[in-house]
Amino acid sequence: MTQPSPALLADLAALLGPKGFTTDADVMAPWLSDWRGRVHGAAAALLSPASTAEVQAVVRLCAAAGARLTLQGGNSGQCAGATPDASGEALLLSLRRMNAVRAIDRDAMLMMADAGVILQHAHEAAVATGLRFPLTLGGKGSATLGGLVSTNAGGTQVLRHGTMRALTAGLEVVLADGSVLDMMVPLAKDNQGPDPKQMFIGAEGVLGIVTGVTLRLVPDVAMRAVGWLTVETPSDALAALRRMEPVLGNALEGFEILPQRALDNVVAHVPGTRAPVETPGPWHVLVELVAAEGEDDPAPRLEAALGGLIEAGVASDAMLAGSEAQADMLWRIRDAISEAERAIGPAMQHDISVPVARMPAYIETVPGELTAAFPGVIPLAFGHLGDGNVHFHVRPPLGSDANAWIAEHGAAVSDHVYRAAVAMGGSISAEHGIGRVKRESLAALGDPVRIGLVRAMKAALDPKGMLNPGVLLPDNG
Amino acid sequence: MTQPSPALLADLAALLGPKGFTTDADVMAPWLSDWRGRVHGAAAALLSPASTAEVQAVVRLCAAAGARLTLQGGNSGQCAGATPDASGEALLLSLRRMNAVRAIDRDAMLMMADAGVILQHAHEAAVATGLRFPLTLGGKGSATLGGLVSTNAGGTQVLRHGTMRALTAGLEVVLADGSVLDMMVPLAKDNQGPDPKQMFIGAEGVLGIVTGVTLRLVPDVAMRAVGWLTVETPSDALAALRRMEPVLGNALEGFEILPQRALDNVVAHVPGTRAPVETPGPWHVLVELVAAEGEDDPAPRLEAALGGLIEAGVASDAMLAGSEAQADMLWRIRDAISEAERAIGPAMQHDISVPVARMPAYIETVPGELTAAFPGVIPLAFGHLGDGNVHFHVRPPLGSDANAWIAEHGAAVSDHVYRAAVAMGGSISAEHGIGRVKRESLAALGDPVRIGLVRAMKAALDPKGMLNPGVLLPDNG
Repeated sequence: MTQPSPALLADLAALLGPKGFTTDADVMAPWLSDWRGRVHGAAAALLSPASTAEVQAVVRLCAAAGARLTLQGGNSGQCAGATPDASGEALLLSLRRMNAVRAIDRDAMLMMADAGVILQHAHEAAVATGLRFPLTLGGKGSATLGGLVSTNAGGTQVLRHGTMRALTAGLEVVLADGSVLDMMVPLAKDNQGPDPKQMFIGAEGVLGIVTGVTLRLVPDVAMRAVGWLTVETPSDALAALRRMEPVLGNALEGFEILPQRALDNVVAHVPGTRAPVETPGPWHVLVELVAAEGEDDPAPRLEAALGGLIEAGVASDAMLAGSEAQADMLWRIRDAISEAERAIGPAMQHDISVPVARMPAYIETVPGELTAAFPGVIPLAFGHLGDGNVHFHVRPPLGSDANAWIAEHGAAVSDHVYRAAVAMGGSISAEHGIGRVKRESLAALGDPVRIGLVRAMKAALDPKGMLNPGVLLPDNG
Repeated sequence: MTQPSPALLADLAALLGPKGFTTDADVMAPWLSDWRGRVHGAAAALLSPASTAEVQAVVRLCAAAGARLTLQGGNSGQCAGATPDASGEALLLSLRRMNAVRAIDRDAMLMMADAGVILQHAHEAAVATGLRFPLTLGGKGSATLGGLVSTNAGGTQVLRHGTMRALTAGLEVVLADGSVLDMMVPLAKDNQGPDPKQMFIGAEGVLGIVTGVTLRLVPDVAMRAVGWLTVETPSDALAALRRMEPVLGNALEGFEILPQRALDNVVAHVPGTRAPVETPGPWHVLVELVAAEGEDDPAPRLEAALGGLIEAGVASDAMLAGSEAQADMLWRIRDAISEAERAIGPAMQHDISVPVARMPAYIETVPGELTAAFPGVIPLAFGHLGDGNVHFHVRPPLGSDANAWIAEHGAAVSDHVYRAAVAMGGSISAEHGIGRVKRESLAALGDPVRIGLVRAMKAALDPKGMLNPGVLLPDNG
């Protein structure tokens, strides 16, 4: 591959106009490094089409010229899947100008939207009609719907509502041959062979360009109840979840675990936070129940459930937020764990999953293995216990030069964390995806049959390798 | 293609043993015609492997020999997708001997099972652990899990629980190259690229052989409330659904519409049935609410909702089943509609879907179009209004020679029914699939981009066309 030709650039400039085409280095700069600032790329131009038809036209021009496209939404991915390589040969295709909510169907509880709509705007548009789009995550002010589909995003409400796959009712996708798969209008039942739109969910843009999304909405939250539990072990936390599920059922929406260390970090580094209970862990759980208009107030049920856990000896302490401000504070603690950790210093961050039943064993054994193999490291596991998914961070030993230590040992630490997950039937990427930064790990540890199927799809749908070279598959560009 | 060679048959016989291999015409006969007795085929042998490893070995032998396989579960499909062609060149591969429930994980609410497990056995195994597999349909005594996955089966509980795709947590699939995709252990979050198991759901066996399924289970039903509504129009029925949804929420599991004619047919032809209300339609709705242990009794809520509909003038009559026997009777009426119709004579049967909001318009306009174009025909639409899916049957004019009339006009009638669905953004197959009998209609009326994607998957995964020739795709064998 070589630089895009001046003729191609001129054609693209003419097609997209000044709002949709630039080669200005200052304008492009913010979009050429990944969210976490670890991966830096270059691009011959930034393309910002304003419509699906313009995306099609871009694809046709690039296909004819043999050019390659790196796709980007909010550039808030955790694995650099939206960052071009350093060669400067790629064209950066941003979907951000396609940011219209096309329609909301209140009866059917659906939102049709351009792929470039930012998650927070989708939240606001839903709430304005008395509904809710329940998927949420830290990057909601930047992440776009197309990126969320392409990484099958998760977040804190997966326990009840599932990942992006469960919330995606329809898709519009521009294919590498310039045609459009229009499956925006969802049918509850439609059995005309396999459902092709499923292929593009989680595909990180290597199979097609998501340009439109139909989201499933749910009734807006009318009441919530947020509580806090202190437990001895992750096994006790899972036992608490299993006891609460039958009595709280569908109302149970959040179940997040954190160790005492994470709480201490937050209280020490995030102004205005304090420990919600006096019992010092060693483990804590945040629980959230929500109810829609017309449903019962969940607070008495949560209070009864928490009391039952104390009585049964599963929890050593518990509290129920007595106000919205208190509920917000509990979530603030959970959401600030990474922020607090960044204030302390760099860490090796992992996002792994295992079957839910094995999550306690993972959390209880892998930190010890790591401190034995890498003396002095400080592991920290927290997150979505109910989904079998924790964010597993490992800080270098105290007193070491953190960046130098990570440069020397980081790959070995990550390899240990990932191998332990795979050995328990788990995944090296629970919700962040593979992108550029995990594709060697996927090649080494992933199931070869599964990777072979993805490779076959790639060869079938994008035989020239136009879309997102360098992303997901080890042999992709 | 030619007949499988004697050498291949000998190898298969040696591999599978006498329980797994036969060429006996009497033994094979029941499996060579489709459920509805319309399509008749032939096979060189019936292969009944007892394990995934045996399926792999069969595939490898057949791939090496260039032989073709027709896959079969319970042979209860509605579109002859499990019937070999008449050439006798295919080998019929039955999954029925693979009929073990491998494990039930009560905590995770999952059942791991062989693909040949019959739906009713899966129901019973779930209930024995206090859980439920909520998908059900008329053929439950024959249909196998592998067939249900391969046709993305629906049924009467889709409103709440979704189709087979939503209830499939894991799959094991033998691919055309003899390798096994093992994704039986589900992870709530697992983002290592697109999810390959999605491709095999609804794929009608043309992309791979489903040998194992992990089902999502739900808490068993502790209480139910079944009611009956009489309304003026399908639009009123949909209005009733939209009014009930916010107040009945997650408890609402069934919402089935039928015209007075269907009720009359049942009462006339099915012994022991009688009309549940005195008001003669013209339209009726069966509503079911269910609740698990620990949830509120749904009967008072349904009673209040039905009363509200009468008060609001949406319904002209309503009743709440006062006993389990009465509830069973209401369902018996719904389930006997096809049986009653068969007693009257042959009909052209269609299974279409449109977006839910357009379902009333479809039901209210298409019958009139048909009787204008084909004077004397008797259309009958009934079924899953809440899913935007009705079974649309058309009987030949009274006094005609029914079979001769259908032979002459059936294709034109079906074409009209399908074109009307597609014109409303709908599907020519809501839940029955394409199989052998609808593939010409799919070719004529389906979205070419979507069909192109399925064709690309087929070429990528089964380049020699070994699996289910003649099924789904117009150019498949």
